[in-house]
This record gives sequence, structure tokens and C-alpha cells, in this order.
Amino acid sequence: MKFCNACGAGVERRIPPGEDRERWVCSQCGTIHYENPRMVVGCIVEEGDQILLCKRAIEPRYGYWTLPAGFLELGESTIQGAVRETLEEAGARVQVTAPYAHFDIPLIGQAYLFYRARMLSPEFSAGTESLEVKLVPRSEIPWDQLAFQAVRVALELYREDTTRGRFRMHHGIIMREPSGGYSFEEHLAHDLA
Amino acid sequence: MKFCNACGAGVERRIPPGEDRERWVCSQCGTIHYENPRMVVGCIVEEGDQILLCKRAIEPRYGYWTLPAGFLELGESTIQGAVRETLEEAGARVQVTAPYAHFDIPLIGQAYLFYRARMLSPEFSAGTESLEVKLVPRSEIPWDQLAFQAVRVALELYREDTTRGRFRMHHGIIMREPSGGYSFEEHLAHDLA
Repeated sequence: MKFCNACGAGVERRIPPGEDRERWVCSQCGTIHYENPRMVVGCIVEEGDQILLCKRAIEPRYGYWTLPAGFLELGESTIQGAVRETLEEAGARVQVTAPYAHFDIPLIGQAYLFYRARMLSPEFSAGTESLEVKLVPRSEIPWDQLAFQAVRVALELYREDTTRGRFRMHHGIIMREPSGGYSFEEHLAHDLA
Repeated sequence: MKFCNACGAGVERRIPPGEDRERWVCSQCGTIHYENPRMVVGCIVEEGDQILLCKRAIEPRYGYWTLPAGFLELGESTIQGAVRETLEEAGARVQVTAPYAHFDIPLIGQAYLFYRARMLSPEFSAGTESLEVKLVPRSEIPWDQLAFQAVRVALELYREDTTRGRFRMHHGIIMREPSGGYSFEEHLAHDLA
């Protein structure tokens, strides 16, 4: 950010009066430009023992597999956003059946929200952001070709839940380890069971 | 939004190539300025049969009662944000005990996330954004002096849960009715029980 979107003058990094952290502040009109985390919403679409995966046709992670998901838009609910992204990326009309997982990823300023969903019709097809879309048996998830940590964690939790035959809503945080890897810390899952 | 924060030129409202909705796009450098919903995080702080309420010292809704809550910041988790807001607004050091409610409010581009929390020490005090902070018995919530619909809905659900002696996580959407009032539609609560 270099310029104020209200008046066009330059912005500078400083702590506004009464606040405790640096913001982008306009040097002319004083407008404070807040930046906030964004929400990513998506679906685990279930069809028998299969789930719908999309092979990405865009960067980042071109060619890797993901769950249909994307940024929540202004004016829509998280369920509406998850259903819209599933239609856009996987060409599938779905109905959400339950919230499934909330992940904070402070490192990248994102919060993920995945819903479980069912297909309203058997059709699906690759949208412009997907190279390929397919129903994958739960036992054949391409673990070494997944696009994002949030997708990996969601699918690992999903695998555990299906193994024990009971679904819970999961709520936690994905962090980067000093080693460079990632870890998932589940918060308070017992309260959600 | 009038100017591009990357190059300072004017922005215009148009549909970028490959997209399906209008965005603010720079007329010079072409940067697309996405706008996304923001997350509000806060706590229902429980102390025996009382909860912690704050009387707002700022607009909007100056002088009305609220739960400690505010916008999630970049770099923090939703739990960290809820704990920080509780310290800032209510001067209370708390520990989150469980996620409690997720509300989408598409009308205003916000998603609320409330956690239940307990006090780590008995002290609390009004922060700069509060006129007064107090522990209020659950039976004495000032229903006609609450600041926001999200706070009202959270406290109504909380009252119901305490009446029946069991807490659930709640997940739903707050909408404006044609009459001008508000309604809450709970999604899929049975899956979270």
C-alpha cells in the first residue's frame, strides 16, 4: 500500500492516536487504512464414500489437488460462499449439510471454514480455475499432491472421523513450526463433540 | 474508494476479465481492489452465574451494552483476538474455554465469532472504549439496552442453553427482515449438539 484510496496522497506507517499498533495512515487526510484477515470458505462434497477434489489450473499450487474453496465475498453468508465456490470450481450444485472445520492461519491472515455438503445432481465439471474435477474414494486421497495445509488438515480430520464413524466440528489453528513445517493445534474439540 | 493504493491513479467500477462481478479496478495499473467481509471476535466471560458486559464509550451505539468484541487483526488467531479485545475493552484477563457462536451478517459484511471464557483473575475495569464494565447476573441482562443484534442473539442463545443446562456451539446467519427488524436463522445446530 503506497497511496490513500480516499484522497490519493501518500500513506505512511504509524500508530494512530489511541491505538497500539502501526497502521497505514494517509499523510494528507489522515484516513486509517485497516487491514484484516480474510475468510476462505469451501466444501467437502460427499457422494457415498467419495469426495469431490479439484486439480488447480491457477497459481499458487498449479496442478495440485484441493477442495473447492475461495474467498468469501461481501454480501454473502459463509454457506452461500462455500456453495458458490463449489459451483464455480467444480461445476457441482450442492447443499451444505453441516459446518465441519474452522482453521485460523494467522501466518497468512486467513481463516478457513469448511462445510460438509451433498450433491443436488450427479453432474460436475472443471471450472476455469480447475484442470480436472473428480470424485475420489476416501481411501485414495492424493496425500502427496494436496495444494494447501488447510486442505490437508481438513482431510486428515475427515479421515479420522470417518474411521471412527462419527463427525465432529473441528476448531483450531494452523501454525508454521521453527523447522519450516506446519502443525495443527485443535482447540477445545471436546466441547464440540 | 476513489484512488488506487498501489499507483495513486483513479479507480473505476468494472468487471475484471474472467470474473463475474464488479470490482474497484485501477484505470492505470489495472490492480483489482478486492473487498472482503471482516471478522469480529469476542467473549462471553462467565463468572459463576454472571457474565461480563461493557457499556460503550464510542459510536456506534454509545451508551449501550455489549460483549467485549472487535475486529480480528492480521497475525492473530480468533482466540487471541477475542482475548485481546476482552483485555482492551473490559480490562479482564481471560482464558477461552470453548467456541460458542458463529454468525454471518452479510448485510454489513461481517462474521462474528464468540467464545466462552473464564476470568484468570477477579480484576476488570473499563478500557478507553467503555464507559463502564460490570458482571451482570444472567437473569438481569439489559435486553432493551444492548448495542448490536449479534450480541442480542448470542445472549438469547446463551440464556436458552443455560436454562436447559447444556451448551452447544451455534452457527447461523443474521438477516434484516423486510419489516426493518432482524431475524436469526440457525443452521444445522443439531449437527453441533
